[in-house]
Amino acid sequence: MSFTRIDALGASGLAVLLAAAVGVGCSPRPTGQVSSTPAGSIANLMKERGLSEADVSAALQTYMPTGKKDEYYTFASGGHGGNMIVIGVPSMRILKDVRVFTPEPWQGYGYGDQSNQILKQGSRFGKEMTWGDMHHPALSETGGDYDGEFVFVNDKANARIAVVDLHDFVTKQIVTSELIQSDHGATFVTPNTEYVIEASQYPAPLGGGYAPIEDYKDKYRGAVIFWKFDREKGRIDPDRSFAMELPPYMQDLADAGKLGSEGWIFINSFNTEMSYGGTLEGNPPLESGASQNDMDYMHIIDLKSAEKVAAEEGKTKKIAGMKVIPLDIANEEGLLHFVGEPKSPHGICVTPDGKDLVVSGKLDTHATVYSFEKIKGLIDAKKYDGKDAYGVPILPFKDSIRGQVELGLGPLHTQFDNKGNAYTSVFIESTVAKWSLKDLKLLGKQKVHYNVGHIVTAEGDTVSPDGRYLISINKWAIDRFAKVGPLLPQNLQLIGIDGEQMQLLYDMPLPLGEPHYAQMIKADKLDPIDIYKPAGIDVFTGEKSEFAVKAKEERIERKPDGVHVYMTAVRSHFTPDIVRVKKGDTVHLHITNVEQAIDATHGFTIGSYNVHASLEPGKHVDITFVADREGIFPFYCTEFCSALHLEMAGYFLVEPG
Amino acid sequence: MSFTRIDALGASGLAVLLAAAVGVGCSPRPTGQVSSTPAGSIANLMKERGLSEADVSAALQTYMPTGKKDEYYTFASGGHGGNMIVIGVPSMRILKDVRVFTPEPWQGYGYGDQSNQILKQGSRFGKEMTWGDMHHPALSETGGDYDGEFVFVNDKANARIAVVDLHDFVTKQIVTSELIQSDHGATFVTPNTEYVIEASQYPAPLGGGYAPIEDYKDKYRGAVIFWKFDREKGRIDPDRSFAMELPPYMQDLADAGKLGSEGWIFINSFNTEMSYGGTLEGNPPLESGASQNDMDYMHIIDLKSAEKVAAEEGKTKKIAGMKVIPLDIANEEGLLHFVGEPKSPHGICVTPDGKDLVVSGKLDTHATVYSFEKIKGLIDAKKYDGKDAYGVPILPFKDSIRGQVELGLGPLHTQFDNKGNAYTSVFIESTVAKWSLKDLKLLGKQKVHYNVGHIVTAEGDTVSPDGRYLISINKWAIDRFAKVGPLLPQNLQLIGIDGEQMQLLYDMPLPLGEPHYAQMIKADKLDPIDIYKPAGIDVFTGEKSEFAVKAKEERIERKPDGVHVYMTAVRSHFTPDIVRVKKGDTVHLHITNVEQAIDATHGFTIGSYNVHASLEPGKHVDITFVADREGIFPFYCTEFCSALHLEMAGYFLVEPG
Repeated sequence: MSFTRIDALGASGLAVLLAAAVGVGCSPRPTGQVSSTPAGSIANLMKERGLSEADVSAALQTYMPTGKKDEYYTFASGGHGGNMIVIGVPSMRILKDVRVFTPEPWQGYGYGDQSNQILKQGSRFGKEMTWGDMHHPALSETGGDYDGEFVFVNDKANARIAVVDLHDFVTKQIVTSELIQSDHGATFVTPNTEYVIEASQYPAPLGGGYAPIEDYKDKYRGAVIFWKFDREKGRIDPDRSFAMELPPYMQDLADAGKLGSEGWIFINSFNTEMSYGGTLEGNPPLESGASQNDMDYMHIIDLKSAEKVAAEEGKTKKIAGMKVIPLDIANEEGLLHFVGEPKSPHGICVTPDGKDLVVSGKLDTHATVYSFEKIKGLIDAKKYDGKDAYGVPILPFKDSIRGQVELGLGPLHTQFDNKGNAYTSVFIESTVAKWSLKDLKLLGKQKVHYNVGHIVTAEGDTVSPDGRYLISINKWAIDRFAKVGPLLPQNLQLIGIDGEQMQLLYDMPLPLGEPHYAQMIKADKLDPIDIYKPAGIDVFTGEKSEFAVKAKEERIERKPDGVHVYMTAVRSHFTPDIVRVKKGDTVHLHITNVEQAIDATHGFTIGSYNVHASLEPGKHVDITFVADREGIFPFYCTEFCSALHLEMAGYFLVEPG
Repeated sequence: MSFTRIDALGASGLAVLLAAAVGVGCSPRPTGQVSSTPAGSIANLMKERGLSEADVSAALQTYMPTGKKDEYYTFASGGHGGNMIVIGVPSMRILKDVRVFTPEPWQGYGYGDQSNQILKQGSRFGKEMTWGDMHHPALSETGGDYDGEFVFVNDKANARIAVVDLHDFVTKQIVTSELIQSDHGATFVTPNTEYVIEASQYPAPLGGGYAPIEDYKDKYRGAVIFWKFDREKGRIDPDRSFAMELPPYMQDLADAGKLGSEGWIFINSFNTEMSYGGTLEGNPPLESGASQNDMDYMHIIDLKSAEKVAAEEGKTKKIAGMKVIPLDIANEEGLLHFVGEPKSPHGICVTPDGKDLVVSGKLDTHATVYSFEKIKGLIDAKKYDGKDAYGVPILPFKDSIRGQVELGLGPLHTQFDNKGNAYTSVFIESTVAKWSLKDLKLLGKQKVHYNVGHIVTAEGDTVSPDGRYLISINKWAIDRFAKVGPLLPQNLQLIGIDGEQMQLLYDMPLPLGEPHYAQMIKADKLDPIDIYKPAGIDVFTGEKSEFAVKAKEERIERKPDGVHVYMTAVRSHFTPDIVRVKKGDTVHLHITNVEQAIDATHGFTIGSYNVHASLEPGKHVDITFVADREGIFPFYCTEFCSALHLEMAGYFLVEPG
């Protein structure tokens, strides 16, 4: 049999060639299902469905047969959904939608005392927020490598950071400082997750409070917060965290140095023009006001030295409860340097070896590659091109860079593979550009659909990227999917990057918020639990709850603070299944799912009381509310748990008071 | 070239055969992307990824190349997520997550005056609900066929019905009646969508109010509400709706007759034992109390006659504002009949020809097929097996049925294809059973993973199903997907049903609520809009808002009721971009996205004020709030809209009062 080229063979020849390849000879699948006769041959399917050879290749690279597991998890921010989406790669199936800043009843997040407590931590100026604008997830790292333990996310709108525990994929903490009024350079972690970085975006008076906008240059400021992470506790420790005051430019993305540049932090900025809009008042709009200068400033922060300064008496101020290194101290101590960045930069990305930094300007056509060694040399030699209006020394641009590579219109963000290549999203022309880090040479482009923001490669922010896969996080989908009204999904395109040329593998519509960034981690680095053990775990503390209920110990107790209902859930009943209270009673439900079988989740609701809980196996939930309406309110299990699930119900009886 | 059987060829032979099938000869894709060289041949990919021939066939039947559109939309309820998930078939990609009972910030649902008004309609006893438990979506029908205009959904926990408009995939109305305290036989529509059916599940005193549970048989009741749909207005008209009182059994699923049985409504029930739990008080749990009788009652309702009776003076009572036909009047007028159903039935499904009804009992092993003709004959002849305790005549079981077919343990729900076959989910053994409607013969089973609840076939509830695809809505996933903590996704399995044997095509994890039911409609039946035209549309009314703002007419006006901000959004600025108010002011934002380009969506937020909006092209949103905290609060566009998106920002300045 000869090696026949498909193009020489033609469609009908191909049909003959492949006709028998998939047919009645298939053996039953090992999963025990009834043996299936495929509906047609490969060639027939290609013809019927209009599939090209590249489509067949892509299909077979992404299809995940029943029971087989994806190789990577991608953690994508949900933008103003306030959620984080977990996507399996290469199948691009959504495995989880972790709610972080936004309540979600199926998960019971924001329903019940435990998760309400987490959300309440995120209050701003004493008010609870019911949503967030998540931009940049950061996986916890050990030695510059993702370790699969935690993921940190930010809320740009309300300047918050959350900790999601990858042992159970649940949000465990939200921290916020009223020092700043928005963030964007968040979250990014240092190589051993000592700190979680949060840089402000839109300047405002530090700590809140009013100042006329005409006093922008004098009274408005940016800041970067270094949140201290306590890995043992799995929580950020605000008391050991500190911040640094920054000029009122708009700080943008950040990244932490690694290997040789470990201990250094890099933050982009734009609007060094300090424009603030006011079009109805005769000012230029921010979009043009902020685009006047040819160069903005990369912020280079010596974190190790800053940490020492922050620990010294008298070197910091407390603002809104946060320890802050003022700008003049930062300058005195040499903690902060600037270097020019071409016009309105967006991405700042440290290369895997820690030696270079890649910056792309939205209004520039290049990726600019800075050498950390050169930057460090200039800092050590105090070789400046002067200082900015706030006294920050500026390093000479040309002496800081290793070179530039022209990529196209609107380059934004860069990721890396395992072969020394870089990949940069090019927003305006809707492409991903592949280029050589060593030679600064453009190697190829892949068209994407459309308006790509960030991109992510497998293990792309670590010291050892994997190559293999890249996801292009496209902001617009336009004509890619069946219509669903004016609000379109995003299009996340999976691209194979192991070959010389990039290969488009899969279009994934994402209609759950708007991912700004994502990180992709090897699936075998995670080892999440299936069951809360022993039964009665409070997910907020991770410990057995003092209110945990055991089978046969269910009871209802009237106490001075109200009626306490100690309830268990198990297929297919709640005990007790009749709860009698009087109108006006405060009710404390303490519900334990006593099951210890995988997937044996129950839900709990009381009709018309807006009470709901998700009870995964072993989980304990407390729910406090006032029985302020008399009547007969059914309660039932909301998760289809068994054949007699509909019978898993009871009555909440509220007698007239 | 001979037709070589793949099993005779062996793996290495196959590799040779296919080595050249996919290779460097691929021509560039028509979409303009750079030509891709597939990473390997089909055979190599099969080997590398462990794909069987059946997997290859399944992959090629489900893969959707970039830019090609899915053939069907599946509308799946989100269970206690309170959402509806729109899934493309055959790719099983999620195209939309329509929020119905639960706020969601990315869509701006529950953020802004318009969508808050919709959610507020769903208040129960004066209190807003922030979630729902959606079970059964029903697409609007014309002549018994899906027409693609609307979809109706229910909230079991709070007895509510919502109307989702498929012109823009937005929830437009929520109705509720305090007559009942939960629902389950909802929503189902009559063949021309004259009525949307909502049957209660857990009995309670009608209209709310307290009665001791010991008075269950006397004072607790079920009911079915016939919500009148006004198609021209696209809204349910509560004033033209009516209900019928039912005995305190637990009414379950419902279906409407079609063709010959049009005008008749069928509702399952269980717990004709009238057990109500009370295990701590010495009673049996509901799960066993409700499983004593060998037969429960199918409710057969003559809707056309009921409609006439409801229109007569003195034949109805007003309860909680709803016109109700009391049980004694229903009996007098012959509106309601019962017939026995084997042990704890779940599904009740009218066949496409309207002639038969299929019922499956959770604790029975059969599908029981009733003949509508026989039932009608018995009703006309008044041939009864006596009456129940509430005076409802009971038709003789054996004279009502056409036969039974043994399917396995725990059959639940039945769907149909275009070849006279029925498919029934079998919960306990985790299979889908295919059987012949004509012969009542089992034809085959497909293993599913795991615990299938409902199933859905293409156009499966219409008078002319399509065949082709079936989705098995599996409640448990257990070992199918990469681990994501104790709360697992569901597994929706796509099954090809055009061949003699069913073929498992795709495993789709669904971690967004828990679908109970779904309907699948041909994609070309829908024609949703892309853009709200003209700019300034209030999505709640569908009309141009009185507050719509045009470019160059932006302004800020102080009026007696507060500060009115007339704002436009367009790439890349808001006008005005500085808003000055005083602490304590009521602020009325009126924001119009003046863009008319597909996908040109903007978002709007004011930091720390919990204010958010999604502004699709042409949409107008009003937001009312009190500026109760002084300070400087950035506002910005939350949807990545353009290269200068980050510059689409402004300041909300709250001066001390």
